[in-house]
Amino acid sequence: MVIVMKPKTPQEIIEKIKNKMISLGCHVHVVQGDDHCLLGLVGDTRRINPGQIEANESVEKLIRVLSPYKLASRLFQPEDTVIDVDGFKIGGGHIAIMAGPCAVESEEQLMTIAHAVKKEGAQFLRGGAFKPRTSPYSFQGMQEEGLKLLKKAKEATGMPIVTEVMCQDTFDVVEEYADILQIGARNMQNFPLLKRAGKSNKPILLKRGMSATLEELLMSAEYIMSEGNLNVILCERGIRTFETYTRNTLDISAVPAIKELSHLPIIIDPSHAAGRWSMVEPLSKASIAVGADGLIIEVHHQPELAVSDGAQSLKPSKFAHLMRSIEKIAKI
Amino acid sequence: MVIVMKPKTPQEIIEKIKNKMISLGCHVHVVQGDDHCLLGLVGDTRRINPGQIEANESVEKLIRVLSPYKLASRLFQPEDTVIDVDGFKIGGGHIAIMAGPCAVESEEQLMTIAHAVKKEGAQFLRGGAFKPRTSPYSFQGMQEEGLKLLKKAKEATGMPIVTEVMCQDTFDVVEEYADILQIGARNMQNFPLLKRAGKSNKPILLKRGMSATLEELLMSAEYIMSEGNLNVILCERGIRTFETYTRNTLDISAVPAIKELSHLPIIIDPSHAAGRWSMVEPLSKASIAVGADGLIIEVHHQPELAVSDGAQSLKPSKFAHLMRSIEKIAKI
Amino acid sequence: MVIVMKPKTPQEIIEKIKNKMISLGCHVHVVQGDDHCLLGLVGDTRRINPGQIEANESVEKLIRVLSPYKLASRLFQPEDTVIDVDGFKIGGGHIAIMAGPCAVESEEQLMTIAHAVKKEGAQFLRGGAFKPRTSPYSFQGMQEEGLKLLKKAKEATGMPIVTEVMCQDTFDVVEEYADILQIGARNMQNFPLLKRAGKSNKPILLKRGMSATLEELLMSAEYIMSEGNLNVILCERGIRTFETYTRNTLDISAVPAIKELSHLPIIIDPSHAAGRWSMVEPLSKASIAVGADGLIIEVHHQPELAVSDGAQSLKPSKFAHLMRSIEKIAKI
Amino acid sequence: MVIVMKPKTPQEIIEKIKNKMISLGCHVHVVQGDDHCLLGLVGDTRRINPGQIEANESVEKLIRVLSPYKLASRLFQPEDTVIDVDGFKIGGGHIAIMAGPCAVESEEQLMTIAHAVKKEGAQFLRGGAFKPRTSPYSFQGMQEEGLKLLKKAKEATGMPIVTEVMCQDTFDVVEEYADILQIGARNMQNFPLLKRAGKSNKPILLKRGMSATLEELLMSAEYIMSEGNLNVILCERGIRTFETYTRNTLDISAVPAIKELSHLPIIIDPSHAAGRWSMVEPLSKASIAVGADGLIIEVHHQPELAVSDGAQSLKPSKFAHLMRSIEKIAKI
Repeated sequence: MVIVMKPKTPQEIIEKIKNKMISLGCHVHVVQGDDHCLLGLVGDTRRINPGQIEANESVEKLIRVLSPYKLASRLFQPEDTVIDVDGFKIGGGHIAIMAGPCAVESEEQLMTIAHAVKKEGAQFLRGGAFKPRTSPYSFQGMQEEGLKLLKKAKEATGMPIVTEVMCQDTFDVVEEYADILQIGARNMQNFPLLKRAGKSNKPILLKRGMSATLEELLMSAEYIMSEGNLNVILCERGIRTFETYTRNTLDISAVPAIKELSHLPIIIDPSHAAGRWSMVEPLSKASIAVGADGLIIEVHHQPELAVSDGAQSLKPSKFAHLMRSIEKIAKI
Repeated sequence: MVIVMKPKTPQEIIEKIKNKMISLGCHVHVVQGDDHCLLGLVGDTRRINPGQIEANESVEKLIRVLSPYKLASRLFQPEDTVIDVDGFKIGGGHIAIMAGPCAVESEEQLMTIAHAVKKEGAQFLRGGAFKPRTSPYSFQGMQEEGLKLLKKAKEATGMPIVTEVMCQDTFDVVEEYADILQIGARNMQNFPLLKRAGKSNKPILLKRGMSATLEELLMSAEYIMSEGNLNVILCERGIRTFETYTRNTLDISAVPAIKELSHLPIIIDPSHAAGRWSMVEPLSKASIAVGADGLIIEVHHQPELAVSDGAQSLKPSKFAHLMRSIEKIAKI
Repeated sequence: MVIVMKPKTPQEIIEKIKNKMISLGCHVHVVQGDDHCLLGLVGDTRRINPGQIEANESVEKLIRVLSPYKLASRLFQPEDTVIDVDGFKIGGGHIAIMAGPCAVESEEQLMTIAHAVKKEGAQFLRGGAFKPRTSPYSFQGMQEEGLKLLKKAKEATGMPIVTEVMCQDTFDVVEEYADILQIGARNMQNFPLLKRAGKSNKPILLKRGMSATLEELLMSAEYIMSEGNLNVILCERGIRTFETYTRNTLDISAVPAIKELSHLPIIIDPSHAAGRWSMVEPLSKASIAVGADGLIIEVHHQPELAVSDGAQSLKPSKFAHLMRSIEKIAKI
Repeated sequence: MVIVMKPKTPQEIIEKIKNKMISLGCHVHVVQGDDHCLLGLVGDTRRINPGQIEANESVEKLIRVLSPYKLASRLFQPEDTVIDVDGFKIGGGHIAIMAGPCAVESEEQLMTIAHAVKKEGAQFLRGGAFKPRTSPYSFQGMQEEGLKLLKKAKEATGMPIVTEVMCQDTFDVVEEYADILQIGARNMQNFPLLKRAGKSNKPILLKRGMSATLEELLMSAEYIMSEGNLNVILCERGIRTFETYTRNTLDISAVPAIKELSHLPIIIDPSHAAGRWSMVEPLSKASIAVGADGLIIEVHHQPELAVSDGAQSLKPSKFAHLMRSIEKIAKI
C-alpha cells in the first residue's frame, strides 16, 4: 500500500501517520519527493481500513498494491481449480456446456428441451424455477414445482442441474434439488446470500453483476470461499455500457483477465450478454477461442412462446449448429 | 407498443403477428412503409411479453410507449406523494435532512453525532447496524446491538431513525426499531427483499443501483408498491461511469427526471456519490437547487477513526456550514 | 418514424403536427391509444429534423425506425464489400492481418519489424508517422520522415502501408505514401477530416471512437461514403467502460452487429483494446472466431524501448505464435 | 511514480530497472514487501515513458503520483485564472452567462435572439456558424456568412461572440470574427486543432469530450497552454453513460473536482447535458449552486423551427425565468 501525502504536508503529520501505520503492524518507508511525500507500506496491509487513512485531510490518495481477495487469488493458489459434478469437470481445460430454458414452464417443455440439448452434447441442464424479473407483474417462476421437474429431467437424462437461488429463505429447497447453485448478476453483492452459499456443499455459479469490476466479482467469490465453500465458478454475462444495440456488452477480456488474477474457472453466458439469439453462436465461438471454461446457453423449442427471454433463446437446431462449431474450436 | 417488422416480411407473417396481438386484447394498426411495416398496438400492452415477440425472426425490434410501471407513475397519480414520519414530512416541497454516521460503532459515538446533527437542523438520524461490505473481512455492523443504540438515540433526540435492512431474515428486527427502512444500492433488484418491504408499514428509502436506469429504479419501487406499501422514497447516490476521480458520478438530472416520471419523493446522497468529504457541501447545494426533496449525509466526529466510509464523512463543524448554505438555497 | 404525443394532448395540436409531417412529404397514420396518441410516419423520414418535432411541448418522444445511414447499410447493399489493395483483399471472408510498430522510430527499427511480421504472414504493414498523443510533451511522430521510411519498407517487403492521418493539413502527404489511411478513434467524429477522406482514392480504415455507438460509427462511415469514397474498413478497438483492468473493453459483439447492419468489412485492434500484450493473443483468437475480417496488431522487437505503446506491443516470437493460432481458427 | 514488480521477481531484474530509472535522472527507493517489491521514484517523472516500463514482463503495474499536466495544475498556479473579454470576466467568482441559438440561421433569427438574451442579462452571445453534425445530410452551418451575422449582432448589442471552430483550415476566419473560440466535445482530442488554438490570442472554450476523464480534459488544456495561450475556459457538457432518459449525464461533480485540480475557470452547458429543454432551468440552478463559473445555454425564439437542437433550446420567456432563478442563487 502506498499513501500519497498532499504537497507541503508538515513533517509532524507525516510522522503521525507513519507511527499509526507502524502501530498497525506495518513497516513504513518514507519516500520524499519534490512535491509529494509517499509512504510505502509493507506487511499485511489487508488489515488497514483505507477510509480511515483517506479521511485525513493531508492525504491526497491511497494506492493499494495487494489485491483485497486472497483465497480467490492466483497468487495464493497457482494451479487451476477443477470442479467435479457427477464426473463432469469444470475448469483446468475441461469445457462445460450448460443449456436449457430460461424458465421451467411445464414438464413437456422441460423434457423436450432437456433431451434436445443432451443429444447435442450439453453436459448440464439449466432452467429457472425461481425467476428474478424486473417487473412484479411478470411470471415469477414455477418455484418448488419447477425444481421437481428439474429433478425428473435429471433422472431422465443424467444431466446435473444448474438453477438459480434468489434468497436465503428458499436456499434450502433449491440446494436440495440442484447440483450447481446459480447466484444471479443482480445478487452478486447480496452478501447474506453469499455467506449462505459459502456454507453449502454444492458448487456455486456466481454471475458477474452488470456493473461489477473484476475485482468486485472476485471479492464476492471470496465471500463464499471465506465461509468454506471453495467450489466457485465465475460467469461473465455482459456488462452495462452506453451501447444499446446489444442488451449488454460481453466483456470477453474478462476471461484472460480472470485467468491472470485467479485460479477459479470462468464460463460465459452469451445469451444474456447479447440479448439476441442471432448473436449467440458467434459469441460462443469467441468465448471458446478466448479460453473460457464453458458456456451457459438458453435454448427453447418454441422461443415465441417462452415466458421469458424468448428473444435470446436458441432453437434446438441452432443449438446443434453452435455445438458443432465450438467443438472444432475447442480441439485447437 | 410498436412492432417494427424486418424489411420484406411476407404479408402472412404480418397477419399472424397481428392476429396474435388481437387475441391478447390489443387493437392493432398496420402502417406499411416503403421498407418496414409497423404494427401500432393500442390497449393495455403491459400484458404482452416482449421477448415472445422479439423471438420472432421477422421482427426487427419492439418499441414500448407506455412505461412498465403504473403505481409509481406520475400519469397514474399526478400529485406529489408526501410521507409523514412522526410529523416530519418528505416530498411535496418539504426538505428532509437525514444525517449520522455510516455505521453505529458505540453508544458514545452515536450519541455524540446524533446530538451534533440534531443541533444543526437534521430531522432524521441515519446509521447502519447491518453493513453491506465488499470485503468479508471488514466490520459487518453491530447488528441488533446497533439497532438498540439507534433506539436510545431516538429517545434522546426525538429524531426518527433511518437504517438499512439487508435481507428478509433480519427484516423483522430492523422493522421493529427503524422508522424508515433503507434498501441499499446493491439490493435495488433483490426482488424477494422488495416484496417483503412491500408488506411493511414503514416507509422505504430505496437507493438507486449503481448502474440502474431510472426506469429500473421505478420498477423496483413498483415491486414494493404492488405489495401494498405506497410510502417509497427514492434516493440517487451516484452511478458508475468511466470517471474515477469521484467514487461514483452523481446523476443530478435524476431529480428533474423523476419529478417528470413519478410522484414519489427523491432525495440525494452526496456522500456516497462523491466518496470525498470535500465535495459533499457543493453537491448538497446543487441537490437542493435542482429540487431534491432531501439529503442523506454521513457525519462523523472522528472520520479518521470511522470503521467505514471515513473518507466521505463530514465533521460536525463542516456539516454545520453545509446546513447554513442549503438553508439559504432552500428558501429561494 | 413514430411520434408519441403526451397524454391528453388536444386534438388540434395532433392535427397541426400531422399536417406539418404531411407537408414534409410523409404519409401519417394516427393511432389513438387510451393514454397516448401515436403518429406513424411513412416515406423518406430521413429529411425530418427530429429536434424540431421534439421541441414541441406536446411531444413525449420520437422513435426512429429507419437507420439514419444509407450507403453504409446492409439494406441498401446486401452483399459484402470487398476491398482490394495490391491484390490483398479485405472483407467477404478474406482475413487481413495488419502488423507493425505503434510508431516509426528509425529505419533499422522499422525494417526489422517489417521483415519479421511479413515472415509470419502479415499482409499489411502498420506504423505511425503522425502520432496523436494525450500529452503535448510526448513524442509526436517522425512525420514525413516516417512516411518515407514506410515507403522504403514497402519496397523491401511488398507489404502495403497502413498509417494514420490526423488532419486535413497533412492529408495530401500521408495520402501520397500510404495505401490505407487510418482515421483514429479520437477523430471518428472529426467531420472535416471525414469529408476530406471521402474525396481520397485510397481506402479508409475508420476506428470506432471510444464511446461511439455502432450507429455513430456507421454515420461516420456514411460521411466518407457520401463524398464518393466507398472503400471504408471499420475497426473495433475497445470502448470505454467502468472496468479498468484493461485499457478499454473490447466490444466483440460489434462484429456480428456490424455484419447485420452493414456490408462494410470490420477488423479488430486487440492491442489498443486490451492495452496489455499478454491479452493480445487470446483476444485475436476470439476476434477471428467471432467472424472479424482481420486484425491490426502492434509488434515491436524491443517493447521496453518503444517510444509509444510498449505495454501492448508483441515481440515477434509472440506474434508468430499468435499467427499459428489464428490460422487454425480461420480454417474452421 | 511507483513501480510494482510481480511477485518473485529476481533481484537482478529489480536492479536493472532501478538502474535504468536512475539513468533517467530519478531517485529510486526500493521497498521490499512480502510478495511484491515496490520502486518509489522521486524527481521529474514526467519524462519517463510509462509504456516502456510496463512492457517489462516483470512489472505488474505502474502508479503515477504526479499529474501529467503542469501549466493547468492548481499546484503550479494556486490562484484562479480570471479571463477578461471586453471587460466581461470569467473565473475567480465572476459568473459568465453565454446564450444564443445553436446555429445561426438568418439575420432576423440571430438579432431577435441576441436582443432577447441581452435583455435578460446574458453577457456573451453564442451561435454556431460551422456546425459539427453527426449526419452528412444535415445542415452544416452558414459558415462565413454566419460569422458576419454574429459580428453584426455584436455591433448591435455589445455582446462578445462565442462560436465554434472545427478545424485548422477555417481557424483563421473564425478567429477573426469571434471573441471566444469554442472547441467542441468531439474535438477535445483533436491535437492539431489544440496546437493551433494554443497559438491564438483569443480565449478558448474547451468542451469536455463525452467520455473524457477530467485528467484528459486537463491534458487537452495543457496542449493549448503549452503553445502559449493560457486563456482556457473548461466546459462540462454531460458525459456518456448507460442512462438514456437524458441525452448525456451532467457530471456536476466535475466543477468541485476541477476547482481542486486546476486554476482554470469551468462553466456548464446544461442544454447539451440534458438534451431536453424542460431540464435546463433546474440544471442551471444546480450548476450555479455547485460553484460553476458560468453557463452556456441554447435559446431560440421558435425551437420547433430550429435547424438544430430544437429539443433542448429554451424560449426567451423561459430563459428569462431561468436568469431570475440563478441570480438569487449566485448572490448566496
